[in-house]
Amino acid sequence: MPELRYNVITREWVIIATERAKRPDQFKRKEAKKALPAHDPKCPFCPGNEAMTPPATFTIPDPNNWNVRVAPNKFSALSREGERKRTVKGIRRTVTGVGIHEVIVETRAHNLTTALLTDRDVELVVDTYIDRFKAASSDPRVEQVTIFKNHGDAAGTSLEHPHSQLIATPIVTSQLRERLSNAQAHYDEFAECIFCRVLQMELQDGVRVFLETEHFVAFVPYAAFTPFSFTILPKRHMPCIAELTDAEAADLARILRRALAKLHRGLDDPDFNYVIRTAPLELYGVKYYHWYVSVIPRLTKMAGFELGSGMFINVALPEENAAFLRDVKVD
Amino acid sequence: MPELRYNVITREWVIIATERAKRPDQFKRKEAKKALPAHDPKCPFCPGNEAMTPPATFTIPDPNNWNVRVAPNKFSALSREGERKRTVKGIRRTVTGVGIHEVIVETRAHNLTTALLTDRDVELVVDTYIDRFKAASSDPRVEQVTIFKNHGDAAGTSLEHPHSQLIATPIVTSQLRERLSNAQAHYDEFAECIFCRVLQMELQDGVRVFLETEHFVAFVPYAAFTPFSFTILPKRHMPCIAELTDAEAADLARILRRALAKLHRGLDDPDFNYVIRTAPLELYGVKYYHWYVSVIPRLTKMAGFELGSGMFINVALPEENAAFLRDVKVD
Repeated sequence: MPELRYNVITREWVIIATERAKRPDQFKRKEAKKALPAHDPKCPFCPGNEAMTPPATFTIPDPNNWNVRVAPNKFSALSREGERKRTVKGIRRTVTGVGIHEVIVETRAHNLTTALLTDRDVELVVDTYIDRFKAASSDPRVEQVTIFKNHGDAAGTSLEHPHSQLIATPIVTSQLRERLSNAQAHYDEFAECIFCRVLQMELQDGVRVFLETEHFVAFVPYAAFTPFSFTILPKRHMPCIAELTDAEAADLARILRRALAKLHRGLDDPDFNYVIRTAPLELYGVKYYHWYVSVIPRLTKMAGFELGSGMFINVALPEENAAFLRDVKVD
Repeated sequence: MPELRYNVITREWVIIATERAKRPDQFKRKEAKKALPAHDPKCPFCPGNEAMTPPATFTIPDPNNWNVRVAPNKFSALSREGERKRTVKGIRRTVTGVGIHEVIVETRAHNLTTALLTDRDVELVVDTYIDRFKAASSDPRVEQVTIFKNHGDAAGTSLEHPHSQLIATPIVTSQLRERLSNAQAHYDEFAECIFCRVLQMELQDGVRVFLETEHFVAFVPYAAFTPFSFTILPKRHMPCIAELTDAEAADLARILRRALAKLHRGLDDPDFNYVIRTAPLELYGVKYYHWYVSVIPRLTKMAGFELGSGMFINVALPEENAAFLRDVKVD
């Protein structure tokens, strides 16, 4: 019989379709991806083409000019200039679309991806995330900073060159506010961080954990909403990514690269998104929230039921997906 | 400058990317869809192939055997048999996956779609929705009934034959519970149904309404989250689709067919989902909720930002989309 599982973090139910479940290797890419050149003269993110984007706001220099480069998104969803102004008129609320939308070019190489970079390369990307998160958070118009990556067509990207993005909005989204307030309610009732509790249970159960480093754990959640989606959670309690020590940041790079390498090798480079789910900087140090990375391979489509109910049908077993990833060998 | 708009129903902010906005005709289908035969001998929903699905639970007969046919989904996400049993163990909650998953075959013709049916055909489908909604709701294990349609690949369907689905779950999803409770909070504060208020404002503004019948209004919401998504709202206050009179049901069929015909002709048969957002039957008659149909053309992809923040960037202007649909001529 299928099973409904409850995600205590999002408070969403998921149907685990045990009887329709596909085996892990059925999610492998069907057709080979076309090979990319190491440099594409038309790519706005390739070295030498810096003039095709707005001027950089941040770079990590290297002997070849730069190693990581951040620039405002040329097709920005929000305006960097202007005043944040909220209008309330009857039931209508609008805010001027001010904020920050940056592109983080992760490497000079057009044809690489996180799974194929070195730990040191990924560490520079993580350091950049932390720097840009702090910089965006210091803008008084900004309420929330979302850092995310789209890899591949199905994940919504149009540019192949490895990059992530940062969008800083002048409001807190309802999704984040609800998660913060759910976590707060749990803390008030049980005097514990719900994420620390989940971490403890996952380590104890063991069956959904597929990778562990000194400071982080990677696991497929008990109520994973889509096949192979997973969480990378810091072991130390901290609500905000800006609280990472240097050693922890380096360790995050290691686990992120290795977890994505398992996905890359195990399923033949599937399209995926990842997102850093952090509390805003103003909640630095609060006891009830705990930041993490969500990785969401885009192996299935969202249809009318998901859109219409907010509930997902997962056609994979979290425990089976974790076992599969555990077995994929990576450096 | 872009504009952030607040959806008072979902309490979600949307970025209306005014400067990146595409013109309505840029959303037209790029490549022609392949033509379908009127009958496909391998299609499980075509007449003559009834044995390829489980036995019907409901049919609307006609001289050719049936006109609308409902059967359990052969690959059901939930088990029709069994007991609803909830297990609570520490922070884990599970429920046995019992419920109802039915397929509603809308017509005998393999190659038609709602836009191309007659009003009378669509009326039979609406009548079927109401019957099956009531039947599913009468199952004591069922807490929520979602009726939806997936049209086309991008909308997550694998079968071309015109059909919708019903999934009845043994829990209330967090999405529905939040919307009910948001609407209730508004009622408590303002002594009005928030949907009735939205209706009144949309009729007054006029610019987002593109179709109106005796009992319904179709409009692109002020804070539409994706291009061309629209709402069909009953003018009379009613929380639950089961409250429709016969005349209203016939009128719903009319506006649904015409609205979808505008989409079909205006954008060359785009993929879309629709979903009926109704209160559960046990909330029949409550003053604070108001059911409606959401139509969501699948013209853009959900990427990392949307998944990671719950917030959408709409690259179309709701008022421009409405004007475009208003101008498309349909019978």
